[in-house]
Amino acid sequence: MSTVLDQKTLFSTIPTIQYEGLESDNPLAFRWYDESRVVAGKPMKEWLRFAGAYWHSFNGSGADPFGEPTHLFPWDQEGDAIGRAKAKMDAAFEFLTKLGLPYYCFHDVDVVDYTNDVADNERRLQTMVEYARQKQQETGLKLLWGTANLFSHRRYMNGAATNPDFHVLAHGAAQVKAAIDATIALGGENYVFWGGREGYMTLLNTNMQREQENFARFLHTCKDYARRNGFTGSFFIEPKPMEPTKHQYDYDAATVIGFLRQYDLLDDFKLNLEVNHATLAGHTFQHELQVAADAGLLGSIDANRGDYQNGWDTDQFPNDIYELTEAMLVILEAGGLQGGGINFDAKIRRNSTDVQDLFHAHIGGMDIFARALITADNILQKSDYRQIRQQRYASFDAGAGKAFRDGQLTLEQLRDYAAEHGEPQIISGRQEYLENLINRYI
Amino acid sequence: MSTVLDQKTLFSTIPTIQYEGLESDNPLAFRWYDESRVVAGKPMKEWLRFAGAYWHSFNGSGADPFGEPTHLFPWDQEGDAIGRAKAKMDAAFEFLTKLGLPYYCFHDVDVVDYTNDVADNERRLQTMVEYARQKQQETGLKLLWGTANLFSHRRYMNGAATNPDFHVLAHGAAQVKAAIDATIALGGENYVFWGGREGYMTLLNTNMQREQENFARFLHTCKDYARRNGFTGSFFIEPKPMEPTKHQYDYDAATVIGFLRQYDLLDDFKLNLEVNHATLAGHTFQHELQVAADAGLLGSIDANRGDYQNGWDTDQFPNDIYELTEAMLVILEAGGLQGGGINFDAKIRRNSTDVQDLFHAHIGGMDIFARALITADNILQKSDYRQIRQQRYASFDAGAGKAFRDGQLTLEQLRDYAAEHGEPQIISGRQEYLENLINRYI
Amino acid sequence: MSTVLDQKTLFSTIPTIQYEGLESDNPLAFRWYDESRVVAGKPMKEWLRFAGAYWHSFNGSGADPFGEPTHLFPWDQEGDAIGRAKAKMDAAFEFLTKLGLPYYCFHDVDVVDYTNDVADNERRLQTMVEYARQKQQETGLKLLWGTANLFSHRRYMNGAATNPDFHVLAHGAAQVKAAIDATIALGGENYVFWGGREGYMTLLNTNMQREQENFARFLHTCKDYARRNGFTGSFFIEPKPMEPTKHQYDYDAATVIGFLRQYDLLDDFKLNLEVNHATLAGHTFQHELQVAADAGLLGSIDANRGDYQNGWDTDQFPNDIYELTEAMLVILEAGGLQGGGINFDAKIRRNSTDVQDLFHAHIGGMDIFARALITADNILQKSDYRQIRQQRYASFDAGAGKAFRDGQLTLEQLRDYAAEHGEPQIISGRQEYLENLINRYI
Amino acid sequence: MSTVLDQKTLFSTIPTIQYEGLESDNPLAFRWYDESRVVAGKPMKEWLRFAGAYWHSFNGSGADPFGEPTHLFPWDQEGDAIGRAKAKMDAAFEFLTKLGLPYYCFHDVDVVDYTNDVADNERRLQTMVEYARQKQQETGLKLLWGTANLFSHRRYMNGAATNPDFHVLAHGAAQVKAAIDATIALGGENYVFWGGREGYMTLLNTNMQREQENFARFLHTCKDYARRNGFTGSFFIEPKPMEPTKHQYDYDAATVIGFLRQYDLLDDFKLNLEVNHATLAGHTFQHELQVAADAGLLGSIDANRGDYQNGWDTDQFPNDIYELTEAMLVILEAGGLQGGGINFDAKIRRNSTDVQDLFHAHIGGMDIFARALITADNILQKSDYRQIRQQRYASFDAGAGKAFRDGQLTLEQLRDYAAEHGEPQIISGRQEYLENLINRYI
Repeated sequence: MSTVLDQKTLFSTIPTIQYEGLESDNPLAFRWYDESRVVAGKPMKEWLRFAGAYWHSFNGSGADPFGEPTHLFPWDQEGDAIGRAKAKMDAAFEFLTKLGLPYYCFHDVDVVDYTNDVADNERRLQTMVEYARQKQQETGLKLLWGTANLFSHRRYMNGAATNPDFHVLAHGAAQVKAAIDATIALGGENYVFWGGREGYMTLLNTNMQREQENFARFLHTCKDYARRNGFTGSFFIEPKPMEPTKHQYDYDAATVIGFLRQYDLLDDFKLNLEVNHATLAGHTFQHELQVAADAGLLGSIDANRGDYQNGWDTDQFPNDIYELTEAMLVILEAGGLQGGGINFDAKIRRNSTDVQDLFHAHIGGMDIFARALITADNILQKSDYRQIRQQRYASFDAGAGKAFRDGQLTLEQLRDYAAEHGEPQIISGRQEYLENLINRYI
Repeated sequence: MSTVLDQKTLFSTIPTIQYEGLESDNPLAFRWYDESRVVAGKPMKEWLRFAGAYWHSFNGSGADPFGEPTHLFPWDQEGDAIGRAKAKMDAAFEFLTKLGLPYYCFHDVDVVDYTNDVADNERRLQTMVEYARQKQQETGLKLLWGTANLFSHRRYMNGAATNPDFHVLAHGAAQVKAAIDATIALGGENYVFWGGREGYMTLLNTNMQREQENFARFLHTCKDYARRNGFTGSFFIEPKPMEPTKHQYDYDAATVIGFLRQYDLLDDFKLNLEVNHATLAGHTFQHELQVAADAGLLGSIDANRGDYQNGWDTDQFPNDIYELTEAMLVILEAGGLQGGGINFDAKIRRNSTDVQDLFHAHIGGMDIFARALITADNILQKSDYRQIRQQRYASFDAGAGKAFRDGQLTLEQLRDYAAEHGEPQIISGRQEYLENLINRYI
Repeated sequence: MSTVLDQKTLFSTIPTIQYEGLESDNPLAFRWYDESRVVAGKPMKEWLRFAGAYWHSFNGSGADPFGEPTHLFPWDQEGDAIGRAKAKMDAAFEFLTKLGLPYYCFHDVDVVDYTNDVADNERRLQTMVEYARQKQQETGLKLLWGTANLFSHRRYMNGAATNPDFHVLAHGAAQVKAAIDATIALGGENYVFWGGREGYMTLLNTNMQREQENFARFLHTCKDYARRNGFTGSFFIEPKPMEPTKHQYDYDAATVIGFLRQYDLLDDFKLNLEVNHATLAGHTFQHELQVAADAGLLGSIDANRGDYQNGWDTDQFPNDIYELTEAMLVILEAGGLQGGGINFDAKIRRNSTDVQDLFHAHIGGMDIFARALITADNILQKSDYRQIRQQRYASFDAGAGKAFRDGQLTLEQLRDYAAEHGEPQIISGRQEYLENLINRYI
Repeated sequence: MSTVLDQKTLFSTIPTIQYEGLESDNPLAFRWYDESRVVAGKPMKEWLRFAGAYWHSFNGSGADPFGEPTHLFPWDQEGDAIGRAKAKMDAAFEFLTKLGLPYYCFHDVDVVDYTNDVADNERRLQTMVEYARQKQQETGLKLLWGTANLFSHRRYMNGAATNPDFHVLAHGAAQVKAAIDATIALGGENYVFWGGREGYMTLLNTNMQREQENFARFLHTCKDYARRNGFTGSFFIEPKPMEPTKHQYDYDAATVIGFLRQYDLLDDFKLNLEVNHATLAGHTFQHELQVAADAGLLGSIDANRGDYQNGWDTDQFPNDIYELTEAMLVILEAGGLQGGGINFDAKIRRNSTDVQDLFHAHIGGMDIFARALITADNILQKSDYRQIRQQRYASFDAGAGKAFRDGQLTLEQLRDYAAEHGEPQIISGRQEYLENLINRYI
């Protein structure tokens, strides 16, 4: 093999994934993922609307802060920008359909190289949108969401919508406009904002309040444009606490929900939650899911994982059955994702340089999600999990507890209740029993 | 010295701190703290409303999860509950007035031992309130805030206001009622809620939404009671992300503000921010201050520090002049704290067993705050710090930038602005210059 | 149930665990653990020499830095020290034999309360050793290891063997002597040193070199005594990076091995590795196992888990099948533990207050270890895991690579090899494939 | 200013730093750094052998994992490889001499672009070495240390000296040989190994023991070559726990020292300690310094700082006077660095795009080190810091304590000492006093 990964050709040599090969020992077959299998009343594929991430799988070079690219794609080697972009898109659609992924996601600059010329970029993107539309029709692949990359270009080094310079913000707006146009043209079901540099490097040079006000104004402006132009899908904000900036304003689910509420954006925006970003924020993924679900804002997820010993966004493919089962419990109890899907915002390692590695990564990820879904459903259907949780709060369902919840008790009345009823019983939280329950169904 | 720290007697041997001893080499004298020195138009003591924390200094035993108490106080050795409580209060007032601390703070159970009998606890607290009122009159010491400890008793092991059992919640209410009564009786300027166990140990047994709704209802009920009974001060919520629970609902400033907004509590509640809690939440202290200040909710602070290598609440006394200067920049620009003060929620180390250690700790803490205040004021008055920050956002003060802020530009107009004005200038954030500025004024 | 957990009586009501109940839905039955099942040529019970930890299960009060005890044991309620100690030991042996745990471990102060009188403590311990010897004979339960608690008493607040005061060190020596005597008397197979406060709170008051030299001298002195008195088992050092101290000298496996080598202790000491301590040190558990195995020092393990979002020693029961399978791969390839076993140094949560919780916790832990053992063995026997790893290093097995390993190549010769052979092939690390492999066998 | 930073020209416009401008308000003047000022018996410049880091200041593009370069240097814009390299070196020497930095450090690929041809790379490096020699003579600038970059090229994606493929290892050897030759030719005082990818991404594909044995063999081979060719300086290993790999073998000071001892490398190798790497390893910088000093291996330091809220190598310029004073206390008490200096392995922020930023960064860094040196010296000379530390261990200087240290006491004798002398006195660690002491001298 040459140092240029001959991925395009090799894709052809990988046979279609064997759906029927459940329980197979073939590492390129699924054991658990069967798109038509019914779980909780719906085919598995409706619970698991998987999407491939253009940026990691077809642009990700394997470079890191300490090293040059290791993933050298054949489609990047020659031709003009549009020619390279089409070759890449051919490969992307081949890969995604071969895996049976129903959706894909992209940033504007993923599908075609951008220059510094606004109008030229718009033309480039339109050309590729037309090309993608044809390929979507041919393959049935759909666009889960589109977005604009407002963080890689050097002009965004101090932020885009939160840049102290209005001129930069306007460039961000130009990109978002074109990306919204592309999303609408491709029937994209949602539109995502990840505020990669919407934050600060140091508070010493930052007027945080002004930046956040500008951010809210920017989102309103984008939303109004999209709605005027017929976009009916959801907008998603993707929380992340840090990296590349020291502090990102969309820190975690609770912070973003507070922001959306403060600036009157709750009706149009939901959350796109990523596992690795939860980890960086000091939360479990299931916590972030629950926070969003409780607010009615659980829109979509980015499926990956971080490394608990390393403090940056490793974006590894998911593989922890225990944690994903806990996540699926939350998603199932919330009735599923609201409009979104499960986007593999994950990358193979810098030193995973075989084309098979990309297949293994996605197959492993899809399979573990399928297994987690089945396991969580079993727990909900067959065990006493739900009953234990409900009974735990029963004292608030009637009598004085209910009166309290209904706002009918004063502090004096509460005090009198305590005085009259004496010391409460000590009631175990039964954590170990519930933790074991999950392993019993894995 | 016996193994029982003869702190009460030793207090008598420590001379009053020498205010006039500025620049003195006496480690028991202040170098920077001079309560009448004018900074930014006000005497230093109005910026630095220091308070002593009853729990750490007069109840803190030095015990930790791996060891028994090391601080053995003479007032705990003999007598009945009230007798011990009065002896402790005598020592507390002696210490606090000797140091010249203008304020103190306490939990209900700090001042007197509680039993499981609601009415008996109320009587005990009332007795001590009466004793404290006399001592306040004698010394001029004031109560910065009162609070109730809803986390140490075993009945609160699953939370107080968020306990799944209404019966426990009612006991929490009884304690808060008595603590509010005490705060009012003592002229306490504020009332604090730290939700020590308002959170969860595992999501598997937790209905987070229901618990948070109960929490909001509980706060409303407490607030209504206090207002009906003439309390005009602020209520403070103190954020902390974890410990003792795995996850606490009052995670950080942004989370608490979102909660207060969601549940219509913004008019009565502000934030009490602690340095160590910011650290545990993955934030700088100045970040938390700025978030609160931007929301108009910067109420009070708990002055201490964590250990960046250890992941728990070490509550050490503050000593980092660089970080505190950054904090003071935020506080000064915000116009000061809203109703609160600087409470030394800090404890001497387990192995700091001399009575002098407690003096050194507080003197060092007060001194470093004074120095930070002076330094921050110099930066604001003498350097180009403010000017640099203002000019950085100048593009939004007029023209198209201002029109954007005023909501007068569509996404199309922003796009056209970008297309017409070409690529923006690259403008340095000047982080290193601003960081040096702080050291230049230390 | 009263607030005093009637654990002793309740133990009687829990039936013996059903070994034959594999795949049972009874949460008090094992699904995977079957002590006689053969894995890798040995009965499962020889791979999984489980031990119960006296301190957590029979002394652990559920107290934490923010709250009083919640686990109130009947044996602690009345009687003199020896009486209480015997009641506790009765309960301990009942619990451990009911679960089928073959081993137990204890600190001196776990089995009987100590005073400040050296000779009295020795007598107390000897009394309980005699009692334990009888119970061991009756039940077949064995002592995996003994140890002395040199961290809870206030005299050890600045360390024991590393205390700056020789007088304190001597008290530590007295305790270790008695604990070694007890271990020998009970046929204990190993003796453990966990240096709970052998470290520092601040470098400012610490002569680290002198403290470490004293530590080495102390270990030599203890070892010499034990050997003179017929002890033939291993000594284990248990690494932990911090907590209760800011920094503990036995930071991690690599640090301890370096220390043992420097001070000539490699022949008698091995490592006792704990999952949660690995987490606190920034390592995976399997990393720590591999470091010890490579040095031939993989002695024993403490089975528990931490919480990746909380930065202290949560000592939860193990439940992650993926991580434990990785751990078992290392242990199996290393040929097992050297003399030690799997000690459940884990505690039920503060709010797990039912006696059943203690059963569920241990059953879940034993079961997940059994499953991990079976899974790891399958991977080693049935997959290409071993082959992939061996082939990866094949270039060093012959030719120039072997010559290099044998020390026969100079830097010039290596340079010439590179120049002559041109640019190396890029060879994938195949991480995703290997990660999937584990899930394929779970 | 164009988007290409016209740094080369701008250097000319920055006047020479004003040494005489102590206490000046000019942000381009030093307040504390005065190279001839005598501290602890030596001119400040002998304590503070500052070095500029070629890679960050003259190659660092400002790119990060989420964004393209922002620092566009004029010397990179045109010409062949040697032409660009000479232009860069001209700029580097201008900058370094203007700042008055006495030393510089470089990797082979910093000074000239490398290809895949070993012999061609050697020729390129030799050409630049000749050029550098002339410039050293003209300016008096000296080479503190040289090194080879064995981590950026894609061939090193699985490690260099620890690569599973011998062929890659040989390429690493070729680079080190040329870099050693260059270091000798330029009178370099030391040679550094930073094992950027000497570690693993996953244990699943790694034979850690074999990799570490290869690493040791590699170091011996390099050392032997250098010594044969007349190199008399020290070799330094630079610990770092992770990043870019998941785990790096040179984790921290203790780990590296253990490795050097195990593989008989103590006589030739010392440590080069970096602040940010200590942070990532969970240590304070002063801890790492002390560990190295105690082993007699404190060779050199990389001066920078990390960000306690972000978990990656931010390599910011140092600015914390408190922490650096603690570091300087260790360095002063150790008698200084052994052969090395203080290398500013630090980079201006991605969005610090003005040429002045690079000056401010270095000036701030040099100044804070000078201040820390002066402060630490004052503490040692004027305070009771040393005395407190010595007296704390006095019980080991005579009598039974000394006998213990001399190995003359058995465990029985220690036990008897404890029994006879009763309970020890509780002696405070006086942490708060010592912490205040530092602030008193800042």
